[in-house]
Amino acid sequence: MDWGTNLWDQNDVIDKHTQAGLDLLERYIKFVKERTEIEQNYAKQLRNMTKKYSKRGSKEELECKFSNHASFQEILNELGDYAGQRELIAENMTANISDKLTKYLQDLKQERKTHLSDVKKAQQNLESSFKHLESIKKRFAKEWAEADKATQQADKLENDNNNSKIDVDKAKNHALARMRTAEECRNSYAAELQKYNKEQNHFYYTEIPQIFNKLQDMDERRIRQLAEGYCQFSHIEKNVLPIISKCLEGIAAAGTKIDEKKDSKLLIEQYKSGFERPADVEFEDYSQGVKPSNSESALNPLKGRKHKIFKKHKVNLTVFEVE
Amino acid sequence: MDWGTNLWDQNDVIDKHTQAGLDLLERYIKFVKERTEIEQNYAKQLRNMTKKYSKRGSKEELECKFSNHASFQEILNELGDYAGQRELIAENMTANISDKLTKYLQDLKQERKTHLSDVKKAQQNLESSFKHLESIKKRFAKEWAEADKATQQADKLENDNNNSKIDVDKAKNHALARMRTAEECRNSYAAELQKYNKEQNHFYYTEIPQIFNKLQDMDERRIRQLAEGYCQFSHIEKNVLPIISKCLEGIAAAGTKIDEKKDSKLLIEQYKSGFERPADVEFEDYSQGVKPSNSESALNPLKGRKHKIFKKHKVNLTVFEVE
Repeated sequence: MDWGTNLWDQNDVIDKHTQAGLDLLERYIKFVKERTEIEQNYAKQLRNMTKKYSKRGSKEELECKFSNHASFQEILNELGDYAGQRELIAENMTANISDKLTKYLQDLKQERKTHLSDVKKAQQNLESSFKHLESIKKRFAKEWAEADKATQQADKLENDNNNSKIDVDKAKNHALARMRTAEECRNSYAAELQKYNKEQNHFYYTEIPQIFNKLQDMDERRIRQLAEGYCQFSHIEKNVLPIISKCLEGIAAAGTKIDEKKDSKLLIEQYKSGFERPADVEFEDYSQGVKPSNSESALNPLKGRKHKIFKKHKVNLTVFEVE
Repeated sequence: MDWGTNLWDQNDVIDKHTQAGLDLLERYIKFVKERTEIEQNYAKQLRNMTKKYSKRGSKEELECKFSNHASFQEILNELGDYAGQRELIAENMTANISDKLTKYLQDLKQERKTHLSDVKKAQQNLESSFKHLESIKKRFAKEWAEADKATQQADKLENDNNNSKIDVDKAKNHALARMRTAEECRNSYAAELQKYNKEQNHFYYTEIPQIFNKLQDMDERRIRQLAEGYCQFSHIEKNVLPIISKCLEGIAAAGTKIDEKKDSKLLIEQYKSGFERPADVEFEDYSQGVKPSNSESALNPLKGRKHKIFKKHKVNLTVFEVE
């Protein structure tokens, strides 16, 4: 089923159809570029967010020893990798779809232009040949009418006995001369017609079908490339799915391995003073010669109280700390 | 390993540590909300793009009969579903993480406040008891000193023979009275000390450890909830991955099923006129009495040429169309 044979008289349809095909290709390229921008923007936002929430500074690094803090940092790292995969999607869509198809579109536009211009040239040639044939045919018709008129004139002179033989012969010779000219014109017309019909045949059976078939071949190549571009749109993302899955698994693993008992124990290990709890306050028996002590006894659990209470501005409850 | 026993003197550490825990929970909620916004924005952009590129209008619907056009529409539909899955991620993150943890954070903040306030109250009570003990001890010391002084005074008077027995007895009685008062004070002090030591013991061995253990329990509950929130962050996205995979498969299928030969054939089926190609132009033999025809012969392939050429403004090549 080829366009050359079946659509020989549908140049306009083929013109519009191949244009619509290139328009679709162009629209698809724009679509992929837009998707790429969305993907880049998405990746950038994810990346900025992970940076924003990542811990900085030594104070916070200390907290990171606790599993529930450490796991959040791991999640941020995994999400950073995740963002990297989205960036990869954007990069591959640009390289494997947009850039390739853009180049291809330029070539196809040029090719289509050439084919349509060839059609126009062939049509103009045939038109001009036809005009030439028409003019030759008209000359034959005119010459034949003149010869016919001259012959009738000569016959009329001959049948009228009032005319001299010289006049009759003169008229007959004139008529013969015109007839010869007319017959030459008829031969020219016949030859030109034959030439034209050969040309017309070539136009309809060879020239136009060949160009239309080239346009069909071009359109089918465009469709194959476009179909490949459609598939790439899926494959590029499908290719990163295993790594994205791994990132998600990493996040779940970070959540699962959190051990609240261990975190509680770590706080003890880091801050346990090792001091015994205060013993009972002893009886100071002044009746046995003990002198009144001040209240800063070594056994006093609240020793240095006033001093401490005002040492730290916000926290009034630091009295239990042993230094 | 409990905080109550091991960190009995680290109130300040526990205060700061539980605050840091709530801060992390709060930061995680903010983080998830931010991710949710990014996800919503991403889904919205994808959805707007699919709408923008979807075909509208009858003219373009006609084109959609061609597989390469139809498949693009299918890809847009699949990407619309894909955007729907990203929206679902955002919705579930809000419902299953942010909303839940926000409610939980409020409860924990209140609980922590109560526990720390209980610590402060207990500490204030003990301080006030200690101050009371101090004052009683001081009174005892003072009274004892007075009694001691009175006793020495009486002894001095007795040993000095210049004094009358009445004066000596008076001094002795005074000393005895003071000594009785001092002994009462000693008994009060002893009783108060016993009471205080019981209270102090309760404070260090029961009251504070119990509150610190409640804070530890609270912190461990916080960690478990946070860990669950971390896991949800992964699971919510993992749950939509199968449908996202299906969308991607749908896109690949749309690309794969494109048939360029079928599309070429469809154009023929839609636009084939069925007309035969023009036959040869016939010889018009005026010498056989044929009258000159005008050039609009039925056999002339270019009939109506001038008319047609100017009928359609842009396309000059419509001369081959048969109407």
